[in-house]
Amino acid sequence: MNDISRAGSPDTLPVDPYVARQVIRRGETDGRSAGMAPGFLQGNLVVLPETHALDFFRFCQRNPVPCPLVGVSDTGSTALPSLGRDIDIRTDIGSYNIFRDGELTGRVRDVCEVWRDDLVSFVLGCSYSFEEALAREQVPVRHIELGCVVPMYYSNLMTVPAGPFGGPIVVSMRPMSVPDAIRATEITARFPNAHGKPVHLGDPALIGIRDIDRPDEGDRVPIGGDEIPVFWACGVTPQLALRSARLPFAITHTSGSMLVTDLPAG
Amino acid sequence: MNDISRAGSPDTLPVDPYVARQVIRRGETDGRSAGMAPGFLQGNLVVLPETHALDFFRFCQRNPVPCPLVGVSDTGSTALPSLGRDIDIRTDIGSYNIFRDGELTGRVRDVCEVWRDDLVSFVLGCSYSFEEALAREQVPVRHIELGCVVPMYYSNLMTVPAGPFGGPIVVSMRPMSVPDAIRATEITARFPNAHGKPVHLGDPALIGIRDIDRPDEGDRVPIGGDEIPVFWACGVTPQLALRSARLPFAITHTSGSMLVTDLPAG
Repeated sequence: MNDISRAGSPDTLPVDPYVARQVIRRGETDGRSAGMAPGFLQGNLVVLPETHALDFFRFCQRNPVPCPLVGVSDTGSTALPSLGRDIDIRTDIGSYNIFRDGELTGRVRDVCEVWRDDLVSFVLGCSYSFEEALAREQVPVRHIELGCVVPMYYSNLMTVPAGPFGGPIVVSMRPMSVPDAIRATEITARFPNAHGKPVHLGDPALIGIRDIDRPDEGDRVPIGGDEIPVFWACGVTPQLALRSARLPFAITHTSGSMLVTDLPAG
Repeated sequence: MNDISRAGSPDTLPVDPYVARQVIRRGETDGRSAGMAPGFLQGNLVVLPETHALDFFRFCQRNPVPCPLVGVSDTGSTALPSLGRDIDIRTDIGSYNIFRDGELTGRVRDVCEVWRDDLVSFVLGCSYSFEEALAREQVPVRHIELGCVVPMYYSNLMTVPAGPFGGPIVVSMRPMSVPDAIRATEITARFPNAHGKPVHLGDPALIGIRDIDRPDEGDRVPIGGDEIPVFWACGVTPQLALRSARLPFAITHTSGSMLVTDLPAG
């Protein structure tokens, strides 16, 4: 399992989460984590100064469906022992966004140079786990078939605010036949750390989506005549809340480059 | 449901959680919450100065089985809108313990006089919910039959520490036949906000308990010849961690006097 030498090329993605992190740390991949260490939970990253950590903690606790918190570091620590062996959060993600006063000011390969002793890292589960489970149970997922990014919408469902954090629940959409939508509901309900069961299905207007063909983020995907749109809470929700809060300083992962953890996905 | 007038005497305990809190607030009961508002989640209370709130939050996040966090207040706020209508955390619990420098310095009916603007309230689910469910499914619970306090033990299973908070996982014990132990495992697994499934069953020595007849807290209960002891993580775990941390100031509920919430138990 720990044979690092064979990892790195697309057809031999590492299956061990520790190896995956080492490969990412050494820059031996394009940084994207999809397909690495199948069966292990991958997570989104939010890093904040301690002065805002308590409010962000409350925001996640009050909104566990869009913000499934799986680990929180000690202040200033770069390790996350509850999530994996020898994690260095400054280097073990493929690429990072740096925000200053709410504005994206840089996209970097690691955050060693901007690291500070007052930072707290939050890791939130992402939807990769449940998409793996859907694939395993032969529920087709359209954007994966099409090789594009899942369409995302700012719904009129609102988060419960905490301090400067709030705003809409962002939802991702996967078109499915009704029988598949029912099976997908049952399957994803078993993955509370990956947003769990859908927050809505059917008529997009009921959650404030006016034009399903114009997602707010990601790519448009077609919906077949015998299909309905199925909506899950999305990890972009805390990213949007973070940007709206306009903190002096924050770090996140970049889209598609997650932290690979040693935790089982389900 | 909101007929307050009939509440208060032991044979007419309020079934509505809002009414239960009003009755407790007005001092019209002995303050004990057992049997009130069946089917609704009851919670343990820990109140801390904001300077220690982030570490206690991390402690709960890292130890969700003994410390199932169900709500956290804004700093200084006496409300918990996510847990119930019109909660005033200073008055809506039957009685409170006040700790100074880790020592119990008082037991009071309300905490209005010691309230401070820097306090944060944490509410953690308690085992009442799963005991209700066991009773509903005819799994006998010995200490309830005997009318005594569940026996509790300091195990050698350790919490994951956070800041000054740490120490052993305290477990409660219920003796059961093996078939009942299996059913109880299945039933309690559905109540993650009430400590979930057992952490151990069978030989007490395997979790460091030397004499099952000498609990560290609560009352001794007999174990029948065809029974095994079944152990669940216990809400005394965070209480013990709190006392060990020797904070300058903290407030908790007193044993048996919980916060009755508007949340469903399961």
